[in-house]
Amino acid sequence: MLNRSWVESANAPDTDFPLNNLPYGVFEIGGEARCGVAIGDMILDAAGAEKAGLTGTEGRCQDAAWNPLMADGPKAWAAFRARLTELLAEGSDARKAVEPLLVPMAEARMHLPFTVAEYTDFYASRHHATNVGTMFRGADNALPPNWLHIPIGYNGRASTVVVSGTDVRRPVGQTKAKEADAPSFGPCRRLDIELEMGAIVGTPSAMGEPVTTAQAQEMIFGYVLLNDWSARDIQAWEYQPLGPFQAKAFATSISPWIVTRAALAPFAVDGPPREKDLLPYLETDFPDGYDVSLSAEMNGHEISRTNMRELYYSAAQQLAHHASSGCAMRTGDLLGSGTISGPDASSYGSLLELTWGGERPLDIGGSPRTFIEDGDTLTLRGHAQGDGYRVGFGACTGTILPAPDFP
Amino acid sequence: MLNRSWVESANAPDTDFPLNNLPYGVFEIGGEARCGVAIGDMILDAAGAEKAGLTGTEGRCQDAAWNPLMADGPKAWAAFRARLTELLAEGSDARKAVEPLLVPMAEARMHLPFTVAEYTDFYASRHHATNVGTMFRGADNALPPNWLHIPIGYNGRASTVVVSGTDVRRPVGQTKAKEADAPSFGPCRRLDIELEMGAIVGTPSAMGEPVTTAQAQEMIFGYVLLNDWSARDIQAWEYQPLGPFQAKAFATSISPWIVTRAALAPFAVDGPPREKDLLPYLETDFPDGYDVSLSAEMNGHEISRTNMRELYYSAAQQLAHHASSGCAMRTGDLLGSGTISGPDASSYGSLLELTWGGERPLDIGGSPRTFIEDGDTLTLRGHAQGDGYRVGFGACTGTILPAPDFP
Repeated sequence: MLNRSWVESANAPDTDFPLNNLPYGVFEIGGEARCGVAIGDMILDAAGAEKAGLTGTEGRCQDAAWNPLMADGPKAWAAFRARLTELLAEGSDARKAVEPLLVPMAEARMHLPFTVAEYTDFYASRHHATNVGTMFRGADNALPPNWLHIPIGYNGRASTVVVSGTDVRRPVGQTKAKEADAPSFGPCRRLDIELEMGAIVGTPSAMGEPVTTAQAQEMIFGYVLLNDWSARDIQAWEYQPLGPFQAKAFATSISPWIVTRAALAPFAVDGPPREKDLLPYLETDFPDGYDVSLSAEMNGHEISRTNMRELYYSAAQQLAHHASSGCAMRTGDLLGSGTISGPDASSYGSLLELTWGGERPLDIGGSPRTFIEDGDTLTLRGHAQGDGYRVGFGACTGTILPAPDFP
Repeated sequence: MLNRSWVESANAPDTDFPLNNLPYGVFEIGGEARCGVAIGDMILDAAGAEKAGLTGTEGRCQDAAWNPLMADGPKAWAAFRARLTELLAEGSDARKAVEPLLVPMAEARMHLPFTVAEYTDFYASRHHATNVGTMFRGADNALPPNWLHIPIGYNGRASTVVVSGTDVRRPVGQTKAKEADAPSFGPCRRLDIELEMGAIVGTPSAMGEPVTTAQAQEMIFGYVLLNDWSARDIQAWEYQPLGPFQAKAFATSISPWIVTRAALAPFAVDGPPREKDLLPYLETDFPDGYDVSLSAEMNGHEISRTNMRELYYSAAQQLAHHASSGCAMRTGDLLGSGTISGPDASSYGSLLELTWGGERPLDIGGSPRTFIEDGDTLTLRGHAQGDGYRVGFGACTGTILPAPDFP
């Protein structure tokens, strides 16, 4: 049910940001980037609210990143969210004090909402793994033998995680045509998106100390939309034997608002049935999937519709696996879910799958597309649908610029 | 030729730290970690020297990490090194002012010398790649087809890079015996070292802006010894298709002193001959290899002797490749060279190779060893030999503790 706010735009049934959501971002209007909370079509200046003594916290909203609050853990998160809900609820006594701290979202430039410590990308959609495996290795070896046992993942590059709206240069790299004797070097010709969710680690874990899935779940602060831009031609030539590297290193875009685990809790669902039993360290006794509708657009034309519940492994399972060897996890670690593809061709989360390796062009407003051309804009959207309201993520968008000249 | 210092221990022919070296570390004697420079068996308190106005810098030595100086670039590095050389040279006028700032190295506890931004591990020794490829994939597929064209690498985990002397817990993880139907979960049974060099990025590069090998060379601040601890049984089961993950995530040890590129310059050598021409973006027109003798010990018994010049790809080439897609590189990025193995069995850089997959135990003082047992101490050492002096790295050591109980 909608929690009504005195911010009227937050009560619209199609806003991404009702009082039920309260996602955390970092915004800038004229100079200084600061912490903010989305409410309807406004942003609450959280730094200002904290300074004014309204949030009951100290020094959690004064950086241009939410990491200080993220590190505080679930009790602090719950108290902060409860206080924000009080301040913004219909009939709140605090309205007079809070109203001057609201700024129009339309005027804000958004920044990364947190400092990314490290970025890991998983591979947790069975349909995606099967599709890509079929194209890269053939139908007989599509799903790797470990896939039903391990939430397969690889470490990605944190230095190029950027906020939605950041332009992305077409990457340059080595590729090799099947018939060629030697590789060549030049701009990527099979540039792709990957429609993913990003889970954000709040509380850290120590080196040498694995965590259970229940502990992992409590460590997760929230989620963003994530586009793991991918250079398929570079990937095909480089990825054996040590995994994707430059094919994924040039950019990863995330949506600007961290939707908290608390806001998504009403939309928790059970994970998919298991074909093979999981090892005990990966089992969960709580619903760890989420019913979140997702879509992708190219130049404003929808090209895919899928759902976060398609993930075979949840962020809690991925995080427990990530820490299982004794790997220390940090505040600000970002875990990409892996491309989320559904069972049918309209629900695939990458152009590689949507065009089946470039063989079946998409019709983008009369213009055929296989992979991304310079100037194309790709946008992800997502929301969980409640009764008369939605908890939305906003958009995760990026436009491709021509490749750089090599120095 | 030895540059003589008024610190007498720095003039011994077997010290790792003559005036020619001047490596940067972070040390602690009674409470506070601070920047220091090794000279003979002493450490110059660089934070104190800077505060006393002796270094000609401001705010470059006041953190417990060398990142501020690292970010300043080659001109600042050269000026700082020249000033240190002046201060510590035989006959220096500054002796009286500097002497009270020297502390005995034997009393210091060392910390990580810099804040690791991200960690990438390469695979640049041909003998190692061939040996491992033979064991994991068979002799026919030993060297991957891209290996002679790409400095193959993967992103590692920065959160578990630790300084020499830090104990390491045996990792836990999934493994699958060849004959088993399903994987099991438990302590690693094939725990290994990887004898590597780590190159440290000083000056950063921007997203979307590749760099040449000449530019990359100028970005490199210095080198450390690096032990990329590896869980071979976990690796074998997890590494396809996206590369090593938990098998390498639990710990990476580095030596405490950053030996600068300037200190190693007299030992630069040409890289190995190329079997196939490199693409132009990887070519170098300067000697980018180094003649650095390396060794590994288990419990004080030498098990390997090799040399940094065995690397097929240099750090400059690896860094240029790393940035080639447009990947932004950061001050504090750590690039592992990959295991450095020579051509013969006494020069292999891992137990996997030294024992040929565990088939040929080593004799460690009468005790047979294939992989690492709890309580074993593994140590790497390295130095470049000059005429009457050496530029050394000190030791990179770690002791293995029993696996944690799973929570």
